[in-house]
Amino acid sequence: MAALRLARSRNVGPSTYIRLVRRFGDPARALDALPELARRGGAGAMTPFDAAAAAREMEAGAAAGARLVILGEPGYPPALAAIPDPPPVFWLRGDPSALRARTVAIVGARNASAMGLRLARAMAAELGAAGFIVASGLARGIDGAAHEGALPTGTVAALAGCVAQVYPRDHAALAERIAAEGGALIAEAPMGADPQARHFPRRNRVIAGLSRAVVLIEAASRSGSLITAEFALEQGREVLAAPGSPLDPRSAGGNQLIRQGASLVRDAADVVESLEQAGAEDPQGEAGGAAPPGLAPDGFAETAAPPPAPQDDRRLRAEIASLLGLAPVEEDELLRLSGANLSAVAEVLLELELAGRLVRQPGGMLALLPEA
Amino acid sequence: MAALRLARSRNVGPSTYIRLVRRFGDPARALDALPELARRGGAGAMTPFDAAAAAREMEAGAAAGARLVILGEPGYPPALAAIPDPPPVFWLRGDPSALRARTVAIVGARNASAMGLRLARAMAAELGAAGFIVASGLARGIDGAAHEGALPTGTVAALAGCVAQVYPRDHAALAERIAAEGGALIAEAPMGADPQARHFPRRNRVIAGLSRAVVLIEAASRSGSLITAEFALEQGREVLAAPGSPLDPRSAGGNQLIRQGASLVRDAADVVESLEQAGAEDPQGEAGGAAPPGLAPDGFAETAAPPPAPQDDRRLRAEIASLLGLAPVEEDELLRLSGANLSAVAEVLLELELAGRLVRQPGGMLALLPEA
Repeated sequence: MAALRLARSRNVGPSTYIRLVRRFGDPARALDALPELARRGGAGAMTPFDAAAAAREMEAGAAAGARLVILGEPGYPPALAAIPDPPPVFWLRGDPSALRARTVAIVGARNASAMGLRLARAMAAELGAAGFIVASGLARGIDGAAHEGALPTGTVAALAGCVAQVYPRDHAALAERIAAEGGALIAEAPMGADPQARHFPRRNRVIAGLSRAVVLIEAASRSGSLITAEFALEQGREVLAAPGSPLDPRSAGGNQLIRQGASLVRDAADVVESLEQAGAEDPQGEAGGAAPPGLAPDGFAETAAPPPAPQDDRRLRAEIASLLGLAPVEEDELLRLSGANLSAVAEVLLELELAGRLVRQPGGMLALLPEA
Repeated sequence: MAALRLARSRNVGPSTYIRLVRRFGDPARALDALPELARRGGAGAMTPFDAAAAAREMEAGAAAGARLVILGEPGYPPALAAIPDPPPVFWLRGDPSALRARTVAIVGARNASAMGLRLARAMAAELGAAGFIVASGLARGIDGAAHEGALPTGTVAALAGCVAQVYPRDHAALAERIAAEGGALIAEAPMGADPQARHFPRRNRVIAGLSRAVVLIEAASRSGSLITAEFALEQGREVLAAPGSPLDPRSAGGNQLIRQGASLVRDAADVVESLEQAGAEDPQGEAGGAAPPGLAPDGFAETAAPPPAPQDDRRLRAEIASLLGLAPVEEDELLRLSGANLSAVAEVLLELELAGRLVRQPGGMLALLPEA
């Protein structure tokens, strides 16, 4: 409950969730500290996610036969825990053990060709036979074919919307089979949520995050599958692509990736070979990906001991607020200019973040919005 | 005439031709020395290629509007002169200047798909527009489409058979257009020769040898196009391949090469980019390929001064014959064991070669057949 409320609270994204739990030892204590931290950061008033609403979501989950999987707890997939911004919580329907196996994602075009569908189905079946769980996004086209091919051996569908009312509706029967036949449906979205455009890239980061490799079959330029491939590269996972005719726009994305250095794969044997080569180069490859610096592979076990009580350092907060502005500053630079120690600066940044004033930009750059 | 007779003489292949001309300064003197060298090597009697037959071939060439191009002379394509076993002579119909431009080969399946033919035609036209001559083998399918696409800018067809009676017959009209419209037909085979199975791999080595890069479009496993790609790799030329569906057997060869590291190309811009990258790594790339060690780029100009007269070194010949046998020996090892100097050993090896007794195997290994 505390984890769910913390994760659903305003201004608490995946990385802030991790900072809070690391700082306060567990979600319940972090949730208690939330209003005071946000107030110091300059927010007028900040109420954590409503306990009654969280209770209703837990009931809806139970009614749908879903369970909540929480970052830092044993059932959480290790590969997903190792990405920079793992979902703090997600809903699961089906077999939880499907999340602990070696996983390969197969993603691709909705308007796939008959050849592409055949290839996805065959490759998924072969990967399943080789002991892999196949992950995808339950979309029409390649995603659906990959799930179908891997049904006998278990397959994981990461959904953009809620885990109970799956989208697209014509894959509802497939989703039920996935959950019933040794696979799993997972969703970061709250119970009852409809999928929205902004959910799809977040879902794609989960598909890549679950997987040791992402295989693209028929991905056009600027397609969602290419976004999944980008996440995979950022997360240090293998990006593999099936080739296609240069005259078929559905092959443009995969061919482009191959030209840029991604491995060309023709079948599951190629995928296994590429993973073995990657594993030979990266000794942590077998573990499904390394944990980010400072975070134990299982979440944040190293912060189980209660930390010192938060200090209200007005002087430092004022100084950091004056050093930051709309023009982005590097976090390292800020630390140096403030002259304060890392944990004190981190505390102030957390307060500003919870007040909705701190903007974290790519490359560790920070910017500050004016006080409301 | 002397070059033609020397090249057509028994036991004189491309590399023996080069050794002979290097040793004796020009083809005429090498031709004169031929019978004596072969006799010393253990051949009963050896007559050089008949002068009257050579004269008839020259007449047939002239009648067909063809000219003889001779290794070491100015009109010989520098890139082809740089391969380990360039044709000593070949026949040319059409525009000789087509052999001096930057060249890219496009080769592929006879039973090409409509997409493959379209791609070959478009890529050839774009490469022509970018200033390249397109080389291919005048076969049905991809080869023909590549020639057609490049007709406006000049294209070179390397033939397995004779330069006058082209094969396949249904490409006779295309061949005439190639020769008439700024391109060229070339053939290593004698005038009047029909193409035989063994001619095709030799023709493929010429296609690769003319070119800075070989582009494969639809090449099945174990296809002639893959043989051309292998020659290109041995010759230090770029191997590029257009991708295709893993479920189409016509794409198997190209996909395999890409998986092994060949660059994937989708259009002429990709080919040009890959050549620029390769040229940046290899400063001699712009020159169309480096000459092999000891051979000047224009053939063997450095051996123009007449060399010392051949010595008949019976003792060394007997020693080398005893060191060699049916079990292959490395040339370096032989040199070391004999204790003689390089030129003396080379002379004996040349004699044995002309007598048809020396077998040169891949990797510089030598074996000796018993005296006839």
